[in-house]
Amino acid sequence: MRIRDHGINIGSMKTGKLNKISDVKGVLVGHSTIADERHNTGATVIIPGDGNPFTDKFIAASAVFNGFGKTQGLVQLTELGSLETPIALTNTLNVGIVHDAVVEYMIKNHSSEEEPILSVNPIVGECNDSHLNDIQNRAVKKENVFEAFGNACEDFAEGAVGAGRGMVCYGLKGGIGSASRVITFDGREFTVGALVLANHGRNHDLMIKGHAIGEEISELQKARNEKDQGSIIMLLATDVPLSSRQLGRVVRRAEVGLVRTGSFIGHGSGDIGIAFTTAGRINSKKNFGEFEYLSEDHIEYVFRAASEAVEESILNALSAASNDVYYGDKHYDALSVYSDLLDKCR
Amino acid sequence: MRIRDHGINIGSMKTGKLNKISDVKGVLVGHSTIADERHNTGATVIIPGDGNPFTDKFIAASAVFNGFGKTQGLVQLTELGSLETPIALTNTLNVGIVHDAVVEYMIKNHSSEEEPILSVNPIVGECNDSHLNDIQNRAVKKENVFEAFGNACEDFAEGAVGAGRGMVCYGLKGGIGSASRVITFDGREFTVGALVLANHGRNHDLMIKGHAIGEEISELQKARNEKDQGSIIMLLATDVPLSSRQLGRVVRRAEVGLVRTGSFIGHGSGDIGIAFTTAGRINSKKNFGEFEYLSEDHIEYVFRAASEAVEESILNALSAASNDVYYGDKHYDALSVYSDLLDKCR
Amino acid sequence: MRIRDHGINIGSMKTGKLNKISDVKGVLVGHSTIADERHNTGATVIIPGDGNPFTDKFIAASAVFNGFGKTQGLVQLTELGSLETPIALTNTLNVGIVHDAVVEYMIKNHSSEEEPILSVNPIVGECNDSHLNDIQNRAVKKENVFEAFGNACEDFAEGAVGAGRGMVCYGLKGGIGSASRVITFDGREFTVGALVLANHGRNHDLMIKGHAIGEEISELQKARNEKDQGSIIMLLATDVPLSSRQLGRVVRRAEVGLVRTGSFIGHGSGDIGIAFTTAGRINSKKNFGEFEYLSEDHIEYVFRAASEAVEESILNALSAASNDVYYGDKHYDALSVYSDLLDKCR
Amino acid sequence: MRIRDHGINIGSMKTGKLNKISDVKGVLVGHSTIADERHNTGATVIIPGDGNPFTDKFIAASAVFNGFGKTQGLVQLTELGSLETPIALTNTLNVGIVHDAVVEYMIKNHSSEEEPILSVNPIVGECNDSHLNDIQNRAVKKENVFEAFGNACEDFAEGAVGAGRGMVCYGLKGGIGSASRVITFDGREFTVGALVLANHGRNHDLMIKGHAIGEEISELQKARNEKDQGSIIMLLATDVPLSSRQLGRVVRRAEVGLVRTGSFIGHGSGDIGIAFTTAGRINSKKNFGEFEYLSEDHIEYVFRAASEAVEESILNALSAASNDVYYGDKHYDALSVYSDLLDKCR
Repeated sequence: MRIRDHGINIGSMKTGKLNKISDVKGVLVGHSTIADERHNTGATVIIPGDGNPFTDKFIAASAVFNGFGKTQGLVQLTELGSLETPIALTNTLNVGIVHDAVVEYMIKNHSSEEEPILSVNPIVGECNDSHLNDIQNRAVKKENVFEAFGNACEDFAEGAVGAGRGMVCYGLKGGIGSASRVITFDGREFTVGALVLANHGRNHDLMIKGHAIGEEISELQKARNEKDQGSIIMLLATDVPLSSRQLGRVVRRAEVGLVRTGSFIGHGSGDIGIAFTTAGRINSKKNFGEFEYLSEDHIEYVFRAASEAVEESILNALSAASNDVYYGDKHYDALSVYSDLLDKCR
Repeated sequence: MRIRDHGINIGSMKTGKLNKISDVKGVLVGHSTIADERHNTGATVIIPGDGNPFTDKFIAASAVFNGFGKTQGLVQLTELGSLETPIALTNTLNVGIVHDAVVEYMIKNHSSEEEPILSVNPIVGECNDSHLNDIQNRAVKKENVFEAFGNACEDFAEGAVGAGRGMVCYGLKGGIGSASRVITFDGREFTVGALVLANHGRNHDLMIKGHAIGEEISELQKARNEKDQGSIIMLLATDVPLSSRQLGRVVRRAEVGLVRTGSFIGHGSGDIGIAFTTAGRINSKKNFGEFEYLSEDHIEYVFRAASEAVEESILNALSAASNDVYYGDKHYDALSVYSDLLDKCR
Repeated sequence: MRIRDHGINIGSMKTGKLNKISDVKGVLVGHSTIADERHNTGATVIIPGDGNPFTDKFIAASAVFNGFGKTQGLVQLTELGSLETPIALTNTLNVGIVHDAVVEYMIKNHSSEEEPILSVNPIVGECNDSHLNDIQNRAVKKENVFEAFGNACEDFAEGAVGAGRGMVCYGLKGGIGSASRVITFDGREFTVGALVLANHGRNHDLMIKGHAIGEEISELQKARNEKDQGSIIMLLATDVPLSSRQLGRVVRRAEVGLVRTGSFIGHGSGDIGIAFTTAGRINSKKNFGEFEYLSEDHIEYVFRAASEAVEESILNALSAASNDVYYGDKHYDALSVYSDLLDKCR
Repeated sequence: MRIRDHGINIGSMKTGKLNKISDVKGVLVGHSTIADERHNTGATVIIPGDGNPFTDKFIAASAVFNGFGKTQGLVQLTELGSLETPIALTNTLNVGIVHDAVVEYMIKNHSSEEEPILSVNPIVGECNDSHLNDIQNRAVKKENVFEAFGNACEDFAEGAVGAGRGMVCYGLKGGIGSASRVITFDGREFTVGALVLANHGRNHDLMIKGHAIGEEISELQKARNEKDQGSIIMLLATDVPLSSRQLGRVVRRAEVGLVRTGSFIGHGSGDIGIAFTTAGRINSKKNFGEFEYLSEDHIEYVFRAASEAVEESILNALSAASNDVYYGDKHYDALSVYSDLLDKCR
């Protein structure tokens, strides 16, 4: 189930074919899920496009809404405005191992004698799944990351899968969600896709299309008045031709989508946005590059698409999350348990 | 009329006595309004507290949500984490003259032989009132700024006054709005106050307590499908003891309040937040200062207070705006014209 | 006299024809100098290129090395990565009036019925000339700015002229200085030019080509052991095709040139860099723009050119400064007084 | 050998007892060196002070001079202004494994039932030692990091040890260097210490006390006209009471020290500064903290100390580096090979 299956349509823009980040041509997503008595965790990888990302880099940008998080790789991404690896997501204490796995993946798959990879900047995002996972054990291994790469596809699963397996969002079961929007401009069609790892928000605060549904759920749920902890990683992919500066402006609108689901960007939350475009890839062998960009006066369409796609991605993460994730006695209800309440949000 | 007079209460926290930024002890606000056939504009000043701000500076921080604006003084405010003058607001093309007026005000009122003011950093924020004002004429003069200082008081007016005179917000008459929240913590009472100069948003996007009232208004109003232009300046005052870094985190939550009223942080918008605290003032004559600060683990209360106060300030700006501002034939309806629709937002 | 006239050549790269920022085609510089018993101050304007900067904007970037300064306009320049007016320089307390003058200049010269200027973002930099000027009197008027525009030319004066009239640098007479470097790459020739308003540094710290000449001068000069106060504004112009992100990297190398003259980037100093390119101007009427950029792997040439040009500009400001600027009894020796010492710096 | 053993004294301030970062009470440094036919690499850890850094955090700040690097942990360090683990240094492709090792170290040593570590933010800096190391093999293992912690002491080694084993600096053998400065102010004594991992700079550019010694060395060395590649990590420790904002200003002066050794902050260089103070540690169990800070007007002493200590640290890294590091036939001369040339730098 996705949020639209409840008759709830977010925003006014058209969705892409799958209504997922993979509607941006070339983008693939793979999961590796670890679910045993002691663990609910995993890894998710996002392949940004075809070919070698190291030799043909992607223009990229990031935004730190709340920096209480451990996302790796933003220093270089910001300096050079480019992404040179897939993006990986996992739990907070596994970022080191996953980073090492992405380095290994890059050497195995994209290093050559002419262009050996002696320096590479993996992007690894994380949220904290310790409510449902023995996080200190760092269960995610390199093999999980390789498995996620092997599984990468267009029509990937959402909810409590991959890095999303143990995540909790607005006091409900959270995880991976995605959505997309299509922009037609100047006779051309463009796509903006989002993918979130949603692990944020106080139960009481959940809002769907302006309806304060979290207030009702928190009563039914014995009022978990938790702090606004956890985190959210928000990824945006597009094929609109944009510079890294422009993508920076786009990714800062991810927060709009986040706030529209009820978040106050709480203290204990690492809220990070990363955006890339498949247009204008950077080949460093050339002396001069050529670049097309959308005029700033028309960037607002992209802002709205990004905001809508992030908002819907979060609701898809909640909608798709299964109700059967347990960690000993601990369990977080899925949104599906309260599907009756969703009628009024249409 | 304020938004609460319609029975609409924003958030869950207690308001201060006046429910204005001046609930923070020492904060005063003054207006000078210019309203003639050719102009709807003015200046508003915010005095941050008692005494000499130059010799006893205020800890401060700022956030640039969208930098398509001309706010002056943020470079030094950010470097030194301090505010050393009142804050002034005006129209986009008048920032220079108002800046000069604040310099003159500081020299006249706070320069002395022992501590002459040879360098001073006024903070001047602006929004663009050219929809209702002959902005190229730069009608605000130094005298207006001095008049605003002379008028500064606790129970100041809201709506189409001072710098807010010619502002347009969500396709309705905008302007100045304010609100406050009270936090009781560890047996002590603190206040967070907000003041906005609201000139942002597309008519269609206005949202009040989650209700998409803008969609209805835009139909009644012959659907002004404008771009999300204009700007908003959001000021936060508090007496919570916070470092400039912590205030930076607080002011970044102003965007939460803004988004909750429906904004997408459009391209053509200079959205700026500035926060200061009256606690821990900085006297540079000492070799070492002493400083108390709220523990980071409890800062979330301040985040919520800031978000709620900004949201309510924007709605107060709309609620208080009068319906009789004209620029030739041009006119923007006040929210009061649509007060029937407000019932459903309670 | 310029520093090369003493046989002192900075760096290893070739200079442009005039060895000034105006070697970048289209760049003009004009001064207005105020010199009377009470004042040594003025204004300097830098016209970034031909045509209308408002309708055909310049790609630009800035760097704040030490934000204890009042430079205006950086918020928008950074957000949009563009410059839409000439850059003006003046004294600290005159930035407001000069800002207003640039607004007026833009309306008069570049506003049209089809594209009226209702919002414009002047860049105004400043240093504090209160050692040699009654700064509180704000002697620079709009007329001075207009005069500076009227005087703008390629072969402009350096030293104690325009905004540089009352500046003090390393305890010596400072002011305006400029230099340029030529890069030949891929069969094409490019220019990087710098212009500084130099008002920084402790007498004792001055270093010329690695020689600690300031130590000797400060003894001869009765050892002015001042603090490292004052400021420096460092402007870089180029015709290398660079994005605003890339220009941001270039302008951050201005600090290299500054440090090589002995500065420690003292506390009381507003050290600001601004860079623009005349390549790839932005016309907002188009739906999509086309852009050429230098490949990042070759940007190092531009870094070196920027660093060398800034270093030489500072030394040119010192070399060109006249010895006859007085403010009552106050006077700062020109570097020319110590020209004997320069021999060892070759 | 250290640079002072050649009679070359950097700057004018007094050094600490060991003239190392460990002159700041509580700071310890440990190395683990890997030197075999295939590898010259390792890990270095810096323990910031006594006790549990997770429950009693250190106020901290960072500066990114050139972000072409993979340093991990700066997002949270910047948001919260605090350091909660030791800092580890290693080679570029080993940051993931070292990150995981620090997580494990923190859990083993600083996690308790009352305050379990479920989220922790290691700081891992890196430079690229691929000139002398089979970097793709990622030879540094968790055990190396634990060994480095076991070796941590005050009088640690410099040069080609630990993370510095395979580093190259100005075309010479680089590595680890350290220095310190003592400030006496208001009757109290404070220390500023620096430690660098130096792997930057073009041979030709090396400058010692203003002497362009690199020009001579590069001729003797068959003129390696390399690009300004590599990186430098610059750590600053102090016991001066400073806020994170103030430490941010201090660490930005690390670049002054770097430039004084001849660097142009080349493109291919990740130049990162990190500073922390042992004063005012943050215990999150309290509702309110108390904090003493040095008045901004006196911060310049700390700026100079930071600059001098970084400059001397780099020269100590060069001075201490041994001449016997080989990777197959590859070898970089130690500065000691050219010690005759050092006479003129005194």
